[in-house]
Amino acid sequence: MCGIVAYLGHQEACPLIIKGLKRLEYRGYDSTGISVYNDEQLQIYKKAGKVAELEKTLKGKKIHSTIGIGHTRWATHGEPNDVNAHPHYSSNKKLSIIHNGIIENYSSLKKELEVKGYSFVSDTDTEVLITFIEDIKSHGISLESAVRQALATIEGAYAIVIMDEENPDQLIAARKGSPMVLGIGEGEFFIASDATPIVEYTDEVVYLNDEEIAVINRDEFKIIDIENIELDPYIQKVELELDEIEKGGYEHFMLKEIFEQPNSIADSMRGRLDAKNARLTLGGIREQADALAEANRIIIIACGTSWHSGLVAEYLFEEFCRIPVEVEYASEFRYRNPVINEGDVVIAISQSGETADTLAAIELAKSKGAIILGVVNVVGSSISRASHEGAYLHTGPEIGVASTKAFTGQLSVLTMIVLSVAQRKKTITESKFKELLQELESIPDKIKKVLDSNDKIEYISSLFKDAANFLYLGRGYNFPVALEGALKLKEISYIHAEGYPAAEMKHGPIALIDEEMPVVFIATRDSSYDKIVSNIQEVKARKGMVIAIVTEGDVLIPKMADHVIEVPRCDEALMPLISVIPLQLLSYHIAIMRGCNVDQPRNLAKSVTVE
Amino acid sequence: MCGIVAYLGHQEACPLIIKGLKRLEYRGYDSTGISVYNDEQLQIYKKAGKVAELEKTLKGKKIHSTIGIGHTRWATHGEPNDVNAHPHYSSNKKLSIIHNGIIENYSSLKKELEVKGYSFVSDTDTEVLITFIEDIKSHGISLESAVRQALATIEGAYAIVIMDEENPDQLIAARKGSPMVLGIGEGEFFIASDATPIVEYTDEVVYLNDEEIAVINRDEFKIIDIENIELDPYIQKVELELDEIEKGGYEHFMLKEIFEQPNSIADSMRGRLDAKNARLTLGGIREQADALAEANRIIIIACGTSWHSGLVAEYLFEEFCRIPVEVEYASEFRYRNPVINEGDVVIAISQSGETADTLAAIELAKSKGAIILGVVNVVGSSISRASHEGAYLHTGPEIGVASTKAFTGQLSVLTMIVLSVAQRKKTITESKFKELLQELESIPDKIKKVLDSNDKIEYISSLFKDAANFLYLGRGYNFPVALEGALKLKEISYIHAEGYPAAEMKHGPIALIDEEMPVVFIATRDSSYDKIVSNIQEVKARKGMVIAIVTEGDVLIPKMADHVIEVPRCDEALMPLISVIPLQLLSYHIAIMRGCNVDQPRNLAKSVTVE
Repeated sequence: MCGIVAYLGHQEACPLIIKGLKRLEYRGYDSTGISVYNDEQLQIYKKAGKVAELEKTLKGKKIHSTIGIGHTRWATHGEPNDVNAHPHYSSNKKLSIIHNGIIENYSSLKKELEVKGYSFVSDTDTEVLITFIEDIKSHGISLESAVRQALATIEGAYAIVIMDEENPDQLIAARKGSPMVLGIGEGEFFIASDATPIVEYTDEVVYLNDEEIAVINRDEFKIIDIENIELDPYIQKVELELDEIEKGGYEHFMLKEIFEQPNSIADSMRGRLDAKNARLTLGGIREQADALAEANRIIIIACGTSWHSGLVAEYLFEEFCRIPVEVEYASEFRYRNPVINEGDVVIAISQSGETADTLAAIELAKSKGAIILGVVNVVGSSISRASHEGAYLHTGPEIGVASTKAFTGQLSVLTMIVLSVAQRKKTITESKFKELLQELESIPDKIKKVLDSNDKIEYISSLFKDAANFLYLGRGYNFPVALEGALKLKEISYIHAEGYPAAEMKHGPIALIDEEMPVVFIATRDSSYDKIVSNIQEVKARKGMVIAIVTEGDVLIPKMADHVIEVPRCDEALMPLISVIPLQLLSYHIAIMRGCNVDQPRNLAKSVTVE
Repeated sequence: MCGIVAYLGHQEACPLIIKGLKRLEYRGYDSTGISVYNDEQLQIYKKAGKVAELEKTLKGKKIHSTIGIGHTRWATHGEPNDVNAHPHYSSNKKLSIIHNGIIENYSSLKKELEVKGYSFVSDTDTEVLITFIEDIKSHGISLESAVRQALATIEGAYAIVIMDEENPDQLIAARKGSPMVLGIGEGEFFIASDATPIVEYTDEVVYLNDEEIAVINRDEFKIIDIENIELDPYIQKVELELDEIEKGGYEHFMLKEIFEQPNSIADSMRGRLDAKNARLTLGGIREQADALAEANRIIIIACGTSWHSGLVAEYLFEEFCRIPVEVEYASEFRYRNPVINEGDVVIAISQSGETADTLAAIELAKSKGAIILGVVNVVGSSISRASHEGAYLHTGPEIGVASTKAFTGQLSVLTMIVLSVAQRKKTITESKFKELLQELESIPDKIKKVLDSNDKIEYISSLFKDAANFLYLGRGYNFPVALEGALKLKEISYIHAEGYPAAEMKHGPIALIDEEMPVVFIATRDSSYDKIVSNIQEVKARKGMVIAIVTEGDVLIPKMADHVIEVPRCDEALMPLISVIPLQLLSYHIAIMRGCNVDQPRNLAKSVTVE
């Protein structure tokens, strides 16, 4: 879950790496560090905290180095402090390493090395790994071979880059389970966790695969596998525009991404949705379209926010395609013994396309003969490559740690997949199909209308910013929206918010309700409207404070609720695309008013590339 | 969700009804009331609060009446206050009514009656109903016919009993959607929501069915349907011993029921499990055993705690029977358009057997050709009658509102169902089958061992009693246990506790973690032990307080966790039966230390017989 950046070339490595690390801070930011070759020795500078802390430490120091490795960490072993920060030295301080991932057998390795007389300054698995490499190398073996032998021995996941004081013209990088991109410039090389730190220098990249090792010298590079067989690198052009990853005038990435949604959803539909001619074209799932339409069962695997869009997709698939759907937490799915039959279709949803549990769940399902469709945002990501086919979100990079436009992008893409399957299976009438395509096309404009309520939502936020707890309740298509609204608030404001299907309230959570408890109802006009009105009355009878998301023109709920936020009318199957927007804004404003860092909430990382 | 008791006979109705209402308080207790025929007029006494409040009001009053109706209310419309409490008079005060349920079209009825000049003193749908009956009756129609005509007009759910000042020798009762039992004594009749208020007087009962009306006179009764056709009553013997529903020396029903679990689980297995001869006999599912073994898919529908046991059953069925399982919230299932195919088997789980949403979901699934198996505790309950077959828990009545022994009873019964299907399908080896039967047989003794830790758990509770929030985390079979542990705490201590699969923590909830946040890990030795150890480290790295449920002899986790509670070793598939026990005790002690009424938590009712 950490971020890595490395450089070898003719520029000053230090400022270049620092800049790259800032781009990667969304991946985790407990601590930051850099290693360079300066004054003819390997130096390490590192600090608990964000990249800005490291910059302060480096200020005024005279560092000249055209090689370097840098790291932003998200702690998995040991507290986030200066000592545990990366890079780490080997025991003799001749090697330095940055590492993303977990070495699972590090404690037994550590014992062996301690018996040999090595000692350790940190609690990290990483220091054990680099010392293990030093130990192998001490027998007169080259660094390249030592790394290869070490990686063949260890268990776990990693993306590593290593520097050697004795050869300051070489970097060695390798990956397994954690993403890594190699950028190829004019006489210079870049390594990073994703392409964002690289794109301003070069658009030629190689995505490393698992158990591949890159050996980079000043004038050339090669890629070998763990058996020492040299591989032909597949050089790709990366299409990522730099201004896409800047804030564009908004105070925070999250707010920018919330307000981008009319455009990002339109982008997700561009070239796919043709409402006028009642046509849907999803090129990415063309070959598996039959398999999908004939599936006995669809299994959706995802984590976090993506799991919520999976729940919406379940309701859509069952209603319109009449295919039974099971939505699973990837982490649960992969470790139990789930039933997967030949012909089952697995849909994996992940913004980053790097979610470790989801990736592992895909491999499990593939091994049992399932067909895998990926719904991911990041092009070329591990999940997109592990899937048989899939559909990208096309919503542009999402930088805010709390997912917003990726969620609505997922809903948009999943809805299009559902409708194209339903049309193929003839489980939807032509008129309903056409009607829903038209509705889908109108979603961006409807979201614009919701965004116009921003000031009102900010006012409501000011009334509830000091609440200690929140409940979010919805029914039907709005039930997953309740979960997502609660998750947003939890992630960025650290308020304990919980979502429930509204009817479950009476089976326990209603005990929490008193005058102190704000309850957010997603109560738009749909087939369960009457039922949710009853639920609102039950909460009011117990003096709870009710904030309701309602359809414009509703006259009944405003009489009961303490506050209402209106959203435009919409078919209930598409309502989540709209009804989630006020919840995103509510969480944003509350978090800002509480002084929280919404783009980089504590403890969280953007993509969860370790289990 | 309310409780009703009515009497017509030769005894004093008032004390008898009060006593019965106390037995029913578990059904809801916002307010209480009684109506009697005293001084030649219909009188009503009612109070917000529990039955004890009503008793205070009645103290010293000279009431002589051999007919009466009483009610404990759980508010659905209007605040719980004296005015909204039941019984209600009709407009002319000649009729009084008690009502359990919701009249959905009451607001249009109310308008019609207001046009005719009637006025209302309360906000309730009930007052509208009885005034509607008065209006019909005012045209010279008998009460019996007036009730029948009114019920044919209204929409909604009800169990009602009506008294008439002009005929103090008659009670009229009817039900639709809410349970009702008629007890037949020697020259006396009893009506109640369930048999508990009746059993000390008679064991002969008639369970009323939907849209049946009972017309009870002093010397005889008859049952008619809504079309005025007289029906033959089916008189049953009820087997419920009175001492089963007393506290048996414990301070609270909940504590009694927690400590009863070694016995109640043994009861659930008695006559079914024969470990020595490796035999399982489940008479209640004999006819559908083939259907179950050949099912393409099993759908489990439930609410609240029962939904959690459904999640455990999903893991069991998939692991041992290789049948795909979908677990649904009953309230969500019934209002969306779920896929149910011929041959699908639906398992409905409910302690009371009266859960309204679950019952409605059963009807929906039945209408689509599914086979319904009920797993319920209350014999003769609506769900048991609506199911094709099923297995009772046999754990005895559960009085504490927070379910404990019913949960482990459900797990025990569901495990036996799974193992018998697995044996039939040969998806389990004979040796594993035998091993699990033996393990199952040893569960009561293992629970006794856990109960021995009660003092330690009480001590740990004292350290965390003031916490504002809790997280509960588990993986695999212990994931539903985490949900259940959190629900228990929420229900009775009003602390906001939330359960999650441990790996989902990194996708959001970890943002909540700081020094103030206790995190309960269910981290027993199983196939995901290493993973949950990593999760504990992640929480400790962020200074969270960790309470861990571990397998006895674990030496690793005690080094990391702040507090550990040991449970005996056990196959991981059966671990939920054991690992939930310390969580039940933790919630009990914390609630007691916070001064909460654990047997009757605020806002909650024992069985949720309205949507």
